[in-house]
Amino acid sequence: MKISVVKNILEANQRLAEENRQRFSAERVLVINLMSSPGAGKTSLLERTIRALKDEFRVGVVEGDIQSTYDAERISQTGAPVVQINTGGACHLDSNMIQAALKGLDIANLDLLFIENVGNLVCPAEFNLGEDFKTMILSVAEGDDKPLKYPLMFHESRVLLVNKIDLLPFCDCNPDLMEERALKINPGLILFRISCRTGEGLDRWTDWLKEQIRLRQRLPLPPRE
Amino acid sequence: MKISVVKNILEANQRLAEENRQRFSAERVLVINLMSSPGAGKTSLLERTIRALKDEFRVGVVEGDIQSTYDAERISQTGAPVVQINTGGACHLDSNMIQAALKGLDIANLDLLFIENVGNLVCPAEFNLGEDFKTMILSVAEGDDKPLKYPLMFHESRVLLVNKIDLLPFCDCNPDLMEERALKINPGLILFRISCRTGEGLDRWTDWLKEQIRLRQRLPLPPRE
Repeated sequence: MKISVVKNILEANQRLAEENRQRFSAERVLVINLMSSPGAGKTSLLERTIRALKDEFRVGVVEGDIQSTYDAERISQTGAPVVQINTGGACHLDSNMIQAALKGLDIANLDLLFIENVGNLVCPAEFNLGEDFKTMILSVAEGDDKPLKYPLMFHESRVLLVNKIDLLPFCDCNPDLMEERALKINPGLILFRISCRTGEGLDRWTDWLKEQIRLRQRLPLPPRE
Repeated sequence: MKISVVKNILEANQRLAEENRQRFSAERVLVINLMSSPGAGKTSLLERTIRALKDEFRVGVVEGDIQSTYDAERISQTGAPVVQINTGGACHLDSNMIQAALKGLDIANLDLLFIENVGNLVCPAEFNLGEDFKTMILSVAEGDDKPLKYPLMFHESRVLLVNKIDLLPFCDCNPDLMEERALKINPGLILFRISCRTGEGLDRWTDWLKEQIRLRQRLPLPPRE
């Protein structure tokens, strides 16, 4: 019984995710679903990334939190349009929440949309939102064993940002081993080592991201229905 | 529909939690449900705590992970009896899983049982397991805004261990503000600042814990049914 309920929820989510995907595609906006543990640096990454891109591209954000508008307030300081979703206890975003949030965003006027998921290394990985790809951030302070223990998110992500590398001298974390374990789960994972505190490594990430936005804009439009 | 399913799951869990609680109580074993984000230091805390207590008390561990036996292997190095639960994707432990795990532990020969939950700052807080109290660990590397964003776990916990304080000089985290925010949600929260890496602050925690075990053992036995 429990399993069939879960299956129904995931199927309903997938249908709405497809609707979202078609809408994003029609507007040629690149959409990234950003996931991590609590406190791995999602919002700090967005602040840095938006500031690096904003002279060239129009970036918007959907902020997912259980409650509070703390992160949306931080993002709005960058000048980017932002819509807050409060899940009211739920531990992940779903496609239906995204549809509601899109009413508050003019996506026709965006090149890139970040969806910042609820801080959780488990549940968000099960719910597609209609994004182009999933990106995860992992803080070196979390330790190099995380791919072993939370494999699904590593499996579902296209990009892994290894963050807080400025803390490496003070943590028992071997980033080579961390990445090796992640690549074993997902050999196609694209890796960046960054520090959102010092800025180290962020140029490589934002250069790559700019290229993805340009690629997205050159893609043919989907056929009109 | 979805809401009533959730309600049924939580009610069924609560019934089994009561069964667990009566069993723990009959055996006079103190039971702690240990929760945190991934990588906040639950297993390191257990390693340190077991070593500090083991000459005086018999300590056992139930290890909850989505998959892998990595943490149970670490714990077994301390000599403490340990049972691994693999949730197979589920993002939290529930009372039913604990009942199954107890078949592998001789709790009549324990003074203290730690249940290490799945690393997740959201879902575990909703599921009682029959424990005496919940304890959470928060790493300073996660930032001082976590109580604002994940209030339920702070609300449900009796103890908050602020871990990795050796990283404070290198993080943008104000531990006073972090604790102030946590106490606003739960004014009765018992606070310890610790570093499982350097050992700082752990004596205060283990002294307090020893006192709780002694108190538990002096409690009258529940009436026989």
